[in-house]
Amino acid sequence: MRLLTAVLPDGTTTAAYEDAERWRRLPAADVGHLLSDPRWRDAIDGAEEIVPSGSRRLTPVPAPTKIICIGLNYREHILEMGRELPSHPTVFLKHADTLVGPDDDIHVSDAPDRVDWEGELVVVVGADLRRATRDEAASAIAGYTVANDISMRDWQNRTTQWQQGKMFDATTPVGPVVVTPDEFDPAAGGRHLRTTVNDDVLQDHDVSDLVFGPADLLAYVSSFTRLRPGDLVLTGTPGGVGSGRTPPRFLADGDRLTTSIDGIGSLDNRVFTTAEGTSHGTR
Amino acid sequence: MRLLTAVLPDGTTTAAYEDAERWRRLPAADVGHLLSDPRWRDAIDGAEEIVPSGSRRLTPVPAPTKIICIGLNYREHILEMGRELPSHPTVFLKHADTLVGPDDDIHVSDAPDRVDWEGELVVVVGADLRRATRDEAASAIAGYTVANDISMRDWQNRTTQWQQGKMFDATTPVGPVVVTPDEFDPAAGGRHLRTTVNDDVLQDHDVSDLVFGPADLLAYVSSFTRLRPGDLVLTGTPGGVGSGRTPPRFLADGDRLTTSIDGIGSLDNRVFTTAEGTSHGTR
Repeated sequence: MRLLTAVLPDGTTTAAYEDAERWRRLPAADVGHLLSDPRWRDAIDGAEEIVPSGSRRLTPVPAPTKIICIGLNYREHILEMGRELPSHPTVFLKHADTLVGPDDDIHVSDAPDRVDWEGELVVVVGADLRRATRDEAASAIAGYTVANDISMRDWQNRTTQWQQGKMFDATTPVGPVVVTPDEFDPAAGGRHLRTTVNDDVLQDHDVSDLVFGPADLLAYVSSFTRLRPGDLVLTGTPGGVGSGRTPPRFLADGDRLTTSIDGIGSLDNRVFTTAEGTSHGTR
Repeated sequence: MRLLTAVLPDGTTTAAYEDAERWRRLPAADVGHLLSDPRWRDAIDGAEEIVPSGSRRLTPVPAPTKIICIGLNYREHILEMGRELPSHPTVFLKHADTLVGPDDDIHVSDAPDRVDWEGELVVVVGADLRRATRDEAASAIAGYTVANDISMRDWQNRTTQWQQGKMFDATTPVGPVVVTPDEFDPAAGGRHLRTTVNDDVLQDHDVSDLVFGPADLLAYVSSFTRLRPGDLVLTGTPGGVGSGRTPPRFLADGDRLTTSIDGIGSLDNRVFTTAEGTSHGTR
């Protein structure tokens, strides 16, 4: 099942699921609220159809209580850099304020230099988890979606702690849909994450190459903090970020940033680095 | 004015203020909700008295939307370590789940080794702030309180990013009261932060020695993310933490940890490092 949050022509928002070319309404204001009711699947039969025309998709979980981010988690990239595989996940955080929708413009005029992409697989939590085993964590995965952890490298590298370069409001697109585990298995192989700037494919890597997989990450994080339905775990980015290229490449005003995972879908965001931008014009 | 959040004998919680030996009830469930109404001072006249006996103090803001933490921010300690003063604040985060009250027991049985103290001055935000000037930030300070950013050094140093050692649920005491800026000025000098373990004073330093002061920090953080009433900014710890001592010293099962700032008050927490602890016994 492919879950989404839509804003309807009358301005209300609703959780929904994709049914071929249609969307069908589910009884919650967004996917986060939907997942907090363990019986949410009971509402599928007879769900009312929404006309997608005039509606648009928001980020599926607009207000997770926690957004956990993982760094340095793709095997091939770590080994090709000559590093050893890490013994533990690297953790940093985001707030809900960082999130934007799958088709939203992104304004980084407060930090326009060295703005970099980090395409990522996201695990969406579906149950309360605290000190969970790996099996309990695996059962608590509601689904998977896509993010781009857009990073302000200037700010990220001002101190030893990356956090401030990772938490600019309204700079992290997440979506477009949450695909349930029966339809998407990141460990199956053959499902690529791709980040494209304008026409250049800059990241292209199989999401099965994670060092710490989704269930491992949920169990690990739950050993020190509670996770709740709708919480997001961004699993890290593979090679190909702009700061790692020769010469380095960063996002420029008006760039079109596309982030996709086979079997989930695409984020399609334009990035504006000047104060005014041209966001009301060209799309 | 000295604001607090109390739980009453009937189990309800309320914001209140200290009036000599009495508490007087304010019309909000806690200090966070109180501060979100800009007219909160209108309720002071005629506020009903609470009998403190049978009531106890909770952490003043139980559910801030953001808890921003600052590292490496005491001048003398940085200089005595032979380092240069930083050009920018170091930032990491906590969630509301990390908070405990001023008199609560703290259980760290999931990470019992190398548990360290970090006494800190906390700035409590009183208004919405985004891209604030230093003056706007200064006007938006609701008050000051005390925290101990208890840190699991084993976890903090597993990777380059400290975050996972700083976010164990229910390990960060904050309180006991929020003192408004008309009654407490951290820059005035002569107000010491002290951390005591059992009978040993291990940190004792003037809070006027901050490299980045409260208004500077709020303005800086607001340049990348919105701050809201009740949000907390932990301003960093001075010298004297356990991992910096020769030999190192860490918290042990049953230790009594007291954290105070002159003019605000004291946190008084017992720390238990074994799975069972003895928390139901000795206090």
